[in-house]
Amino acid sequence: MARIVMKFGGTSVADLDRIRAVARRVAAEVEAGNEAAVVVSAMAGVTNELIGWCQQLSPLHDAREYDAVVATGEQVTAGLLAIALQAAGVDARSWQGWQVPITTDAAHGAARIRGIAGAELVRRMAAGQVPVVPGFQGLGSDGRITTLGRGGSDTSAVALASALRVDRCDIYTDVDGIYTTDPRIVAKARKLARITYEEMLELASVGAKVLQTRSVELAMKERVRLQVRSSFTDAPGTLVVDEDEIVEQPLVAGIAYSRDEAKITVRRVPDRPGIAAALFGPLAAASVNVDMIVQNVAADGTTDLTFTLGKADLPRARQLLAEGREAIGYAEVTADSDVAKISVVGVGMRSHAGVASTMFRTLAEKAINIQVISTSEIKVSVLIGAEYTELAVRALHSAYGLDAA
Amino acid sequence: MARIVMKFGGTSVADLDRIRAVARRVAAEVEAGNEAAVVVSAMAGVTNELIGWCQQLSPLHDAREYDAVVATGEQVTAGLLAIALQAAGVDARSWQGWQVPITTDAAHGAARIRGIAGAELVRRMAAGQVPVVPGFQGLGSDGRITTLGRGGSDTSAVALASALRVDRCDIYTDVDGIYTTDPRIVAKARKLARITYEEMLELASVGAKVLQTRSVELAMKERVRLQVRSSFTDAPGTLVVDEDEIVEQPLVAGIAYSRDEAKITVRRVPDRPGIAAALFGPLAAASVNVDMIVQNVAADGTTDLTFTLGKADLPRARQLLAEGREAIGYAEVTADSDVAKISVVGVGMRSHAGVASTMFRTLAEKAINIQVISTSEIKVSVLIGAEYTELAVRALHSAYGLDAA
Repeated sequence: MARIVMKFGGTSVADLDRIRAVARRVAAEVEAGNEAAVVVSAMAGVTNELIGWCQQLSPLHDAREYDAVVATGEQVTAGLLAIALQAAGVDARSWQGWQVPITTDAAHGAARIRGIAGAELVRRMAAGQVPVVPGFQGLGSDGRITTLGRGGSDTSAVALASALRVDRCDIYTDVDGIYTTDPRIVAKARKLARITYEEMLELASVGAKVLQTRSVELAMKERVRLQVRSSFTDAPGTLVVDEDEIVEQPLVAGIAYSRDEAKITVRRVPDRPGIAAALFGPLAAASVNVDMIVQNVAADGTTDLTFTLGKADLPRARQLLAEGREAIGYAEVTADSDVAKISVVGVGMRSHAGVASTMFRTLAEKAINIQVISTSEIKVSVLIGAEYTELAVRALHSAYGLDAA
Repeated sequence: MARIVMKFGGTSVADLDRIRAVARRVAAEVEAGNEAAVVVSAMAGVTNELIGWCQQLSPLHDAREYDAVVATGEQVTAGLLAIALQAAGVDARSWQGWQVPITTDAAHGAARIRGIAGAELVRRMAAGQVPVVPGFQGLGSDGRITTLGRGGSDTSAVALASALRVDRCDIYTDVDGIYTTDPRIVAKARKLARITYEEMLELASVGAKVLQTRSVELAMKERVRLQVRSSFTDAPGTLVVDEDEIVEQPLVAGIAYSRDEAKITVRRVPDRPGIAAALFGPLAAASVNVDMIVQNVAADGTTDLTFTLGKADLPRARQLLAEGREAIGYAEVTADSDVAKISVVGVGMRSHAGVASTMFRTLAEKAINIQVISTSEIKVSVLIGAEYTELAVRALHSAYGLDAA
């Protein structure tokens, strides 16, 4: 017997038939003797419609009213699933965020969970009742409904799993697990049985958006064992767990890529203290998220600085740099949005040398030029021309021995 | 300066343009120096869609979950209207039933309001803020969301008006007031400037469904002055008020009709004590609402009993009578659903004789046969063949001097 949280995303509850299918899955867990609590998203499309209405009425709408409107999507699904569970013979009860309560701060539209009062839910689960909790929402410190921001239902599920001290939090989604890379690019991509929180975070941050980053961070902090699995098959998914739980840790867990990158080079910047602050300070103040940064060794008292950022932020960043030209004193700014970031991720590389050099050699063999390199403890990322994305991902997938037999 | 509650029904908030129009109406009241609170229904069609989903998942769905699902319709409108009001330059804030709170009993799906904590809303209205309250919903004594049953938003508005001690409760709807009869039948029907609560109740109960009966009863009990007016024109509507407020009370306020009636005659029932109880007891137990009842004087130790009921209840009533045949001991049951009820309503008839005889004479002149007669203090109703409905209504409208000049 286990105690679990089951979380179902928008496509898993997109219509009444799928809600019935979700009810059957939950019923199967209960019949197997497990205690289950369920977290649900809004039916696919509903949240976007509600957001659209708010924006059409006022582009600068009040976030408190936005939250009251948008939180209804999950409320509807929770009530409908409770009805479907009862129809399937399972005792069930929906709990709104304000009823549990799931308390948050008052940062409407992007609230953070402060606490979940789980005792009553635990008591009911022990008595055989399934609590159905709408994800994405909570009760703000101002007494009003809050939402956690897009994708917040994953975070709701992990926070609830932590509060209920469950054995596992199953995230049901439209993919059946985490792969060594994108199966659409590499036919030989393999589903991973297990992956560490750290690897999942690095993969998520470079474009493998199966789980919301915040939810993985929270799961790591609270030591909640996650399982990513499909709503549409019975195949086991991928467990996201602590490093200790993975006996044979492979060197590299997976290859991720992101085409959502742009590169800016600032040429002939004066090589003096404080120049990086002058350059990146205004970008940070404007919430432009800078990723990789490379500074060459100075020559002639000047240096070249290259950094990457999200494509959507490129116009804003160029404008800020133009405005700061006098203060920074650079010669020229060039930009390139026709780039991709390729990352090799694995906690195994902590204790193994040669991961980066394998990457560079593999790309060189394919005549792919590396524009920028950045490394973390468990990741090596390179920026390359966007047209080489598939070629690079396939070559690296083979080079690290990830191809399925 | 006045303090008012403004209530907008589903067609008045059917889409974003209409919500904007509602915001302009509310803004005009605020600009005129009035304090306003707003009660809203769900956008037209939304409630039926939500109810349909619950029924499709389970015909015998849990009323607590039904309430959690269905209450979202009003929640969305309240948030959207608050945004639209802010965009129109009006300080506004939505308040869910559980936030005010509007406390109710725990009769989910048909809850009754127990109390409304209005002090905070009054304080905010005095400071120029417009509270937007979703109708139809409350916080049950079990701590869960309740709904008041169909049309409950009118009742929400009147209860809020009472709690806020307003000067007037304006019910905005898709008609522009209460008419002397249905203008689709009688071209010369006139809009009434004023009508009493009692007359409104009698008109509502016989098919002029502009206001929910419960809301009028509550308004009468709490002495809340109602105004029924159109969301789509600026014409003044009809005031529903205490009898004292109507200086020149006309004899008859209006002519109502209902085609939603059926008639059952039970022939040769033994004329002995307790037989009416044996006949109507099982009907009441099955929630079959019986309206007019006529019992003829007995002959040969038996009597004939005729009663009317809603058309939808006819099959159930016939079944119950068939099951009770032995206990009741009647000879035969006949039914006729091809009937209409015509009612003449007016508080003036309390002090004037001759209203009923005018009705009978008028119908006789048109050769319309009266099947059943029933009277109350301020109403005379007759059952006639359905095909005579329009003829009867037009003739009576003229006979009581109600035709517009």
